[in-house]
Amino acid sequence: MSITLAAIPNIPMIAPGDDLAQIITDALLASGLALAPSDILVVAQKIVSKSEGRAITLPKVTPSPRALELARITQKDPRLVEVILSESVEVVRARPGVLIARDRRGWVCANAGVDRSNVDQDDPHGETVLRLPVDPDASAARLREGLCERLGIDVGVIVADSHGRPHRNGTIGVAIGAAGLPALEDLRGCHDLFGYTLQHTQVALADLIASAATLLLGQAAEGTPAVIVRGVPHTQRDGSAQELVRPIEMDLFP
Amino acid sequence: MSITLAAIPNIPMIAPGDDLAQIITDALLASGLALAPSDILVVAQKIVSKSEGRAITLPKVTPSPRALELARITQKDPRLVEVILSESVEVVRARPGVLIARDRRGWVCANAGVDRSNVDQDDPHGETVLRLPVDPDASAARLREGLCERLGIDVGVIVADSHGRPHRNGTIGVAIGAAGLPALEDLRGCHDLFGYTLQHTQVALADLIASAATLLLGQAAEGTPAVIVRGVPHTQRDGSAQELVRPIEMDLFP
Repeated sequence: MSITLAAIPNIPMIAPGDDLAQIITDALLASGLALAPSDILVVAQKIVSKSEGRAITLPKVTPSPRALELARITQKDPRLVEVILSESVEVVRARPGVLIARDRRGWVCANAGVDRSNVDQDDPHGETVLRLPVDPDASAARLREGLCERLGIDVGVIVADSHGRPHRNGTIGVAIGAAGLPALEDLRGCHDLFGYTLQHTQVALADLIASAATLLLGQAAEGTPAVIVRGVPHTQRDGSAQELVRPIEMDLFP
Repeated sequence: MSITLAAIPNIPMIAPGDDLAQIITDALLASGLALAPSDILVVAQKIVSKSEGRAITLPKVTPSPRALELARITQKDPRLVEVILSESVEVVRARPGVLIARDRRGWVCANAGVDRSNVDQDDPHGETVLRLPVDPDASAARLREGLCERLGIDVGVIVADSHGRPHRNGTIGVAIGAAGLPALEDLRGCHDLFGYTLQHTQVALADLIASAATLLLGQAAEGTPAVIVRGVPHTQRDGSAQELVRPIEMDLFP
């Protein structure tokens, strides 16, 4: 049993309005790589957000009084804080250097996923920031459909981001959007090797795949925004990254 | 750029005192798989714990008054709670059905990593539980040395476990032990595609690899406890999973 992950090379800089399905199709053709049925394509959130025009330049942002106050606490740019607040439903933690929010999609993460790096080559000073896609599950579904139209192959798609987490150092890959595969695999009721019934095992399949792909997605200068994952065993059903959102009332670490 | 993961087949049931390096060497020879320099071998915590005699039978355990009280709150077996307490430095959350502890190694996880499933084929009723290795970093280092002695090849080794986490549903793979690779890759100070300096990016490399391998490690009946991971780009240094422990005073979700 084996799994392979392959980075798709030569994906160009993405601009607002770009058709990711076409760009990835072209990159596959140019590289000699191919998608196969049951493959999972993992794309970095950044290219999805860029193609959907989710960049915003800070000089256009006027911070609210609440953003000014949170900027004082967190020592962050008040305009950035304003963008973060506009993307959030709840501020979870605010400390010097830290602003953790529950974003509109339910993800608890630093800066509500708003990111300053890798946004605009004409903006080396970080005056442009990038918000998460409005609906990353829909983004994943559109990309899946676009690839199916062009290549005639039905693959799973994951939109991956890098998040920190409580209790452990370092970022990991997480799925913020998914289509064509289960995001959460429910093993409850399965039997283990010796017949003792597993009672509480739900596996965050899409997060595992996002973390695997993050080994190639490249956090810094490498710039590899799409990875083909082949051979992952999973049940056949469509799913959504929203399966991974723990409801607030079930969260023991609010 | 690509990564491959291969499950090592035909690893037998592990018993206390078993030499994992020898067993994995034998399984590699039998399967035709081979380790190469810079490969990373991921082993499931369970086989490490079993080989180190970390199983304990509940009828031998006498619960303390504190275990009885926590068992009442969590609705868990008081003897299991006693084992969990013996493995913990702090109870983090106790609710009906839930006991999250900071274990002796610093991991915040359900039941301090003590597990009832897959422990003993003579015990289908779950009266035997398995504790984490006493020092999983040392376990990883021993396995690395044992493989180097037998095969003449220096690989990285990760001891992987499945943990739940705050905010998101489902378990993911995490590294609780590591040797021969950095557990945390520090990208602080690297430049991104356009020159904006990444200021806070530390990647939990060993957790990413553990999650990737968890796609094959098999939570239930499959029983594949060792995976070879090939092609992961990383800096060359020795490391330890302790790099991934967030100190309590730095934890915003205590």
